[in-house]
Amino acid sequence: MAPPSWLQLRRTVRFGDTDAAGVMHFLQLLRWCHEAYEQSLEGFGIAPACVFPVPSAERPAGLEPAAAALPIVHCSADFRRPLVCGDPLLIELEPVRLDPGSFEVRYKFWRIRAGEEPQEAARGLSRHLAIEPASRQRCALPEAIGRWLEAAAVAQGGIRPL
Amino acid sequence: MAPPSWLQLRRTVRFGDTDAAGVMHFLQLLRWCHEAYEQSLEGFGIAPACVFPVPSAERPAGLEPAAAALPIVHCSADFRRPLVCGDPLLIELEPVRLDPGSFEVRYKFWRIRAGEEPQEAARGLSRHLAIEPASRQRCALPEAIGRWLEAAAVAQGGIRPL
Amino acid sequence: MAPPSWLQLRRTVRFGDTDAAGVMHFLQLLRWCHEAYEQSLEGFGIAPACVFPVPSAERPAGLEPAAAALPIVHCSADFRRPLVCGDPLLIELEPVRLDPGSFEVRYKFWRIRAGEEPQEAARGLSRHLAIEPASRQRCALPEAIGRWLEAAAVAQGGIRPL
Amino acid sequence: MAPPSWLQLRRTVRFGDTDAAGVMHFLQLLRWCHEAYEQSLEGFGIAPACVFPVPSAERPAGLEPAAAALPIVHCSADFRRPLVCGDPLLIELEPVRLDPGSFEVRYKFWRIRAGEEPQEAARGLSRHLAIEPASRQRCALPEAIGRWLEAAAVAQGGIRPL
Repeated sequence: MAPPSWLQLRRTVRFGDTDAAGVMHFLQLLRWCHEAYEQSLEGFGIAPACVFPVPSAERPAGLEPAAAALPIVHCSADFRRPLVCGDPLLIELEPVRLDPGSFEVRYKFWRIRAGEEPQEAARGLSRHLAIEPASRQRCALPEAIGRWLEAAAVAQGGIRPL
Repeated sequence: MAPPSWLQLRRTVRFGDTDAAGVMHFLQLLRWCHEAYEQSLEGFGIAPACVFPVPSAERPAGLEPAAAALPIVHCSADFRRPLVCGDPLLIELEPVRLDPGSFEVRYKFWRIRAGEEPQEAARGLSRHLAIEPASRQRCALPEAIGRWLEAAAVAQGGIRPL
Repeated sequence: MAPPSWLQLRRTVRFGDTDAAGVMHFLQLLRWCHEAYEQSLEGFGIAPACVFPVPSAERPAGLEPAAAALPIVHCSADFRRPLVCGDPLLIELEPVRLDPGSFEVRYKFWRIRAGEEPQEAARGLSRHLAIEPASRQRCALPEAIGRWLEAAAVAQGGIRPL
Repeated sequence: MAPPSWLQLRRTVRFGDTDAAGVMHFLQLLRWCHEAYEQSLEGFGIAPACVFPVPSAERPAGLEPAAAALPIVHCSADFRRPLVCGDPLLIELEPVRLDPGSFEVRYKFWRIRAGEEPQEAARGLSRHLAIEPASRQRCALPEAIGRWLEAAAVAQGGIRPL
């Protein structure tokens, strides 16, 4: 069964993602991870202003500010194949709830060059903790994030136990 | 007449594009400009490896390295309205040949919030000069760039004189 | 008379500042401009938390939040010579008050390679407008910024008229 | 015994390092790691053009191009305390040879706020592999990197076995 479109994204390596070695600069991969996570939430139906901080004057009318911030407490990346300007990428996301107040997202990056088999080019990981923005104390994950994690677990073929 | 799809692009403001003032950090706009320029070339049918440097081992078989580099010699941006995480943007590009060896691209960014009229949020400009990569001496624009500039001039309603 | 140390800064081009053309990616120059502006304020004696937004829980005890935000409404850059990884730079700042609620900073970047005369490599410009953070209405420049602008005008050899 | 100056660096969190949550955006930490690694090499006496790719026209006269590239094959970071605009940081580096063709650098970031004990704010890790730039085949670490790793091992209080 094909994964839902909000767990399988596409992007292209751009010139500003490269460095003087001619290939993608390592940092960019983690930027792509976070953008893929945001795009996945949006594709699932969660408005960014529900999850990310938006100044009150710019928030959609009637929308409460995000009750929790979800800072990254750990991230990592593994680089397997060079990526160059113009390379088309397929990004697979695997979000996993870790406990009632945290989750992680695992990312696989496939390089899809014309006339080549897809090659796994890199992996990424981000681990997020829910905190109350003002006190920075741990709190429960927002309900919308909970739904996204549950739907992802179902799509990935099984409810993972807490 | 609607502009062609390679002169009118879309993107969304992401969390990493913002700063502690809660809105887009000014730098990001110029990153979006360059990525829009790359996306426009690709949408028009020009392979990135024809224009941007790609190490020989990673270049598509049979493709010559780019004969000219197109560094930016001038850029500018004007910021009119705040952009926040999640804002959908429409980007209009207007590429213009300046002389046989240079061109500029003008960018308009429209903020398309639900329930609001589109608002012009920002403008950008990048000016590019063709040079031979090794000597850094000025040279003619690559032929593919010439075709893109011409098609843009036609789409924008008139051939601009050299 | 030598300019004060807070108007003449140094930095080095780093690998992550370059792109696949082997030289500095254009965006980085504007990042350096903003960092030079911040460093100049700090070198003059203005605490960052007086000017830039800092969450209340992290603000130094007794320090009021910044009364005005100073977003960039316009920026530009001109690129004259290539900069490569490791190039030492001298950055000259020229802050200028434009009216009671705005100022601009002009930046000159000198490339200081061993065994070469200093070469002007690039110029930058940022124009800042004071606004009240919540309403985003124009307001007067913060008093600390006023002192910095005045001291810069004196150092640059003359009080500039408003 | 105090560590040598090339293993203990300082920097300040800048406005562009923050995001709309008001604190440092996670990506920036890994940028600081790489810049600290470059600064450490330079402080130890290794010219950047010996290690990082520099176009031949811009290379110091008489200097050979770097014989090996040192791409990052793995990186990670752990975030423990929020960092805000203006926070002064102390960065401790611990470079470690892993085998004849690879090494890693461990980074500790201390937040040094006035009137507070230094607090460990974050850790980073980058793992580098030596490859021949054209073929991308594994090769031995450059001799200069070997000397830096050895001096670091001595400074850290013991030769680590290969």
